[in-house]
Amino acid sequence: MPQQTGFFPPRSVSGRAALLPEPPWHYSGDLLTIEYRVDPHRIRELLPEPLGLAEEDPGAVAFIWADWQSCATDKAQLLDPVRGQYKEAFVVVRCSFEGQTFSRCVYIWVDSDFAIARGLHQGYPKKLGAIHMTRPHPYGPAPRVAPGGQFGASLAASDRRLAEAVVTLTEEVPSNGFVNGHPMAHNRFVRDIQDPSVMRLDEIISTSSASFEAGPAFAADIDHFALLPAPTEELDLLAPEEFIGGYYRQVGVTWNGGQLLHDNLGGTNA
Amino acid sequence: MPQQTGFFPPRSVSGRAALLPEPPWHYSGDLLTIEYRVDPHRIRELLPEPLGLAEEDPGAVAFIWADWQSCATDKAQLLDPVRGQYKEAFVVVRCSFEGQTFSRCVYIWVDSDFAIARGLHQGYPKKLGAIHMTRPHPYGPAPRVAPGGQFGASLAASDRRLAEAVVTLTEEVPSNGFVNGHPMAHNRFVRDIQDPSVMRLDEIISTSSASFEAGPAFAADIDHFALLPAPTEELDLLAPEEFIGGYYRQVGVTWNGGQLLHDNLGGTNA
Amino acid sequence: MPQQTGFFPPRSVSGRAALLPEPPWHYSGDLLTIEYRVDPHRIRELLPEPLGLAEEDPGAVAFIWADWQSCATDKAQLLDPVRGQYKEAFVVVRCSFEGQTFSRCVYIWVDSDFAIARGLHQGYPKKLGAIHMTRPHPYGPAPRVAPGGQFGASLAASDRRLAEAVVTLTEEVPSNGFVNGHPMAHNRFVRDIQDPSVMRLDEIISTSSASFEAGPAFAADIDHFALLPAPTEELDLLAPEEFIGGYYRQVGVTWNGGQLLHDNLGGTNA
Amino acid sequence: MPQQTGFFPPRSVSGRAALLPEPPWHYSGDLLTIEYRVDPHRIRELLPEPLGLAEEDPGAVAFIWADWQSCATDKAQLLDPVRGQYKEAFVVVRCSFEGQTFSRCVYIWVDSDFAIARGLHQGYPKKLGAIHMTRPHPYGPAPRVAPGGQFGASLAASDRRLAEAVVTLTEEVPSNGFVNGHPMAHNRFVRDIQDPSVMRLDEIISTSSASFEAGPAFAADIDHFALLPAPTEELDLLAPEEFIGGYYRQVGVTWNGGQLLHDNLGGTNA
Repeated sequence: MPQQTGFFPPRSVSGRAALLPEPPWHYSGDLLTIEYRVDPHRIRELLPEPLGLAEEDPGAVAFIWADWQSCATDKAQLLDPVRGQYKEAFVVVRCSFEGQTFSRCVYIWVDSDFAIARGLHQGYPKKLGAIHMTRPHPYGPAPRVAPGGQFGASLAASDRRLAEAVVTLTEEVPSNGFVNGHPMAHNRFVRDIQDPSVMRLDEIISTSSASFEAGPAFAADIDHFALLPAPTEELDLLAPEEFIGGYYRQVGVTWNGGQLLHDNLGGTNA
Repeated sequence: MPQQTGFFPPRSVSGRAALLPEPPWHYSGDLLTIEYRVDPHRIRELLPEPLGLAEEDPGAVAFIWADWQSCATDKAQLLDPVRGQYKEAFVVVRCSFEGQTFSRCVYIWVDSDFAIARGLHQGYPKKLGAIHMTRPHPYGPAPRVAPGGQFGASLAASDRRLAEAVVTLTEEVPSNGFVNGHPMAHNRFVRDIQDPSVMRLDEIISTSSASFEAGPAFAADIDHFALLPAPTEELDLLAPEEFIGGYYRQVGVTWNGGQLLHDNLGGTNA
Repeated sequence: MPQQTGFFPPRSVSGRAALLPEPPWHYSGDLLTIEYRVDPHRIRELLPEPLGLAEEDPGAVAFIWADWQSCATDKAQLLDPVRGQYKEAFVVVRCSFEGQTFSRCVYIWVDSDFAIARGLHQGYPKKLGAIHMTRPHPYGPAPRVAPGGQFGASLAASDRRLAEAVVTLTEEVPSNGFVNGHPMAHNRFVRDIQDPSVMRLDEIISTSSASFEAGPAFAADIDHFALLPAPTEELDLLAPEEFIGGYYRQVGVTWNGGQLLHDNLGGTNA
Repeated sequence: MPQQTGFFPPRSVSGRAALLPEPPWHYSGDLLTIEYRVDPHRIRELLPEPLGLAEEDPGAVAFIWADWQSCATDKAQLLDPVRGQYKEAFVVVRCSFEGQTFSRCVYIWVDSDFAIARGLHQGYPKKLGAIHMTRPHPYGPAPRVAPGGQFGASLAASDRRLAEAVVTLTEEVPSNGFVNGHPMAHNRFVRDIQDPSVMRLDEIISTSSASFEAGPAFAADIDHFALLPAPTEELDLLAPEEFIGGYYRQVGVTWNGGQLLHDNLGGTNA
């Protein structure tokens, strides 16, 4: 009797058709970050029980654009790049759970199906979007990753522009922000097919990078940043009241799973 | 303490940003179907326990292209059509569970994120693809839905063509095939975030249309049908050994949930 | 010595790789039209010498969305629909030349390369855009082409929404507007490669349909119409001051060339 | 009387809506090149009179993938990157005209409308395609621009894969090939709107870079290279008979016009 394999649907005997290969997943990418503050009430609204606001700087938000190349262990996706390259734009806030501070992605758009599928496993609330970022380059008019380098970025979904930014790098700094620096606390849920008000799975998980390397972080002046309204989005509710700073950094990351934080159907660490 | 709402992530107080509105979901669309037979072993490989082969004609397959306009109850997606139109191409086989015959979608590609998300709720193993279908039209060179009308269709993913067909309608017939005519038996599973070899949810559900209306079904000659190889697909394992028939039909469908058939973690009808 | 053939680049011995097949080109499609008036000065600005404003109703504008299936004589593009289907949104005004009234497309967006190439031959100033239109359908929630049918449409380019409309059909009328009803007067120009302020070709041509068939035209209430600003567009300069009417019609059209109206480098009918 | 401006249609008083800004155009990009030989007859077929085969190595071909960021003088397109980034894949051969050797692009695919429009001015026979290239990155699994770095690339059009390559960098070399190293000799033509067998413009132009800077060129082993058939392409007629070499290089380029080589309607240097 043949056994089905595959990390994610569709499954088959060989597992070859699965939308996702098995972790670990490896990433090379550039991060353009805008950190700012909103009324903490805006963040509180996006935190389901039992998560609460972070104790320090509870209104801090990071809006991040990322340009990724990703692959599984055999690197096949790197060499057939339509299967491994993607871009994303996402909003990270912080929250507390049982006295610990976590980061949490509240909105995220990507431009590939495999990135959506990874997000389902990892608890990211992904939608498809159109994301563009200026890329650094050593020759010609494109910017270098160095003071004076100017980078733009945009996000659209459903043919509406949702966010855009322009930043100018100023100087090296120890890190590219603090809002996205904690382990992530993310919800995963599946509704009952008969009574969708009932959850078949409802849990909070935590995930972090399994390994991380990076170039120097650069602070950046925020020349332009706008969050634009759309009928099916609520990004504009998170419009900045006060800017913290802009950042740019090139990183290499490996992701390889996480831990269950809370089973909303049955208690912590069920 | 604000409560989060939204049928699907991302959730918020208003639920406005959710990728999916609540069911029921309503659809208008055209279906181009190619039915054929393969060695039943090819189908057996795609059926996880406790599903088995259908008793009659166990090697029958339906390859279906569909061009949909879809919406929730308020029809908002119809009038902002980037949010409601999508196309799909999918492969349906039949299976048996506890003596009853079910249809089962084993591969499916769509061209929107909301269609992927619906598929996650409904147990369809969706990927993104590029799908094109000739559309009927009453004037000019495009075909009518009538004998002699000729329709083409194609499917690609990751910049590779995976399937293509051309059919010519011949005569009205009672139905547009039998392979996709049963309730669907689909798996839904979520892997543990710490040990992904463990399932947190693993179930078989059944779903059907809540309502259905349709125009006449037309039989069609199959002028061309090809399933093409790709490094991350296994469609070509389902290449036809014998054709059953081609079909075209315009339909209106409502979907509104289903039933749990089997909890693989805990027994039937848990 | 082999001869190169092909209606449009790239050319080759067989001509098979040419982006365009030879005319005549045949079209089946649906047209959603919004007619309105602006200050005639706004239109005057878009008419190069020797074109002038139309004598009657010189401020009339038609904004048209069209959903096309197109093909050459052998219909190959209909049956491999990725090569023949496209959508467009365009703005038509009227003008006069030597005492005759012409229609003139001043802005147009399409979603395929072959449509851009046809536009170069025909003098349409095409850009790529993302265009969506509600499609009529006989079953389910989508509208019928009949009184009460409600249709939406949108246009975006460079990830910014540029235009959107919603109309509700009311009653049959003799035609779907008058602004796009004349032969087209379009400019074609090619700049010198050494001194681009010099034109190598600069002419005004006229083209019409070679044949035309259509279903009933329907008048429509304009429930919503918006032209939105963008840094590289000037659509918002053509915002309506007064609406004339909305229309919907299904048509079949053949295009097969036109006439030279004026050679700007050397006189009329050179 | 208002004057229309704009380098390319659509034109307006401000010129703001034009699809192209005025040259010079500036580019930063990466080039992955595969050079090889075919039967010179295959190249002869693609050279219109009065161009002839190059005297030395007349069967040499370069297949090049390029990942570009481009802008006009004000760099606006760099900071709204959806308006300036694009990728292309193209085939270059060599030819002779009046005793001088030129390069000539015989097939090219790009993924933006502004790149198509530039190509019309420059005489490149552009179509839309889907192009992907591995990008170098200093961290994580993506390759460095250094010996051992492995890069993949693909091209598709009309949902069919047309070309793919994988190369591994081996050592620094003086240049990234010779086939694309001459001034380009390109045809530009516009057909008469009434009698399309008559040309209104038909000329051969030559263009080169106005300035050029570059990093080290790297030779590369060709791990994989395939040209695939498609019903509307003739790339497979240029399948390699013998490989010359693979190359990778990062460059900065400015383009600012060229010269008329030959007016096919009226003689050389008309």
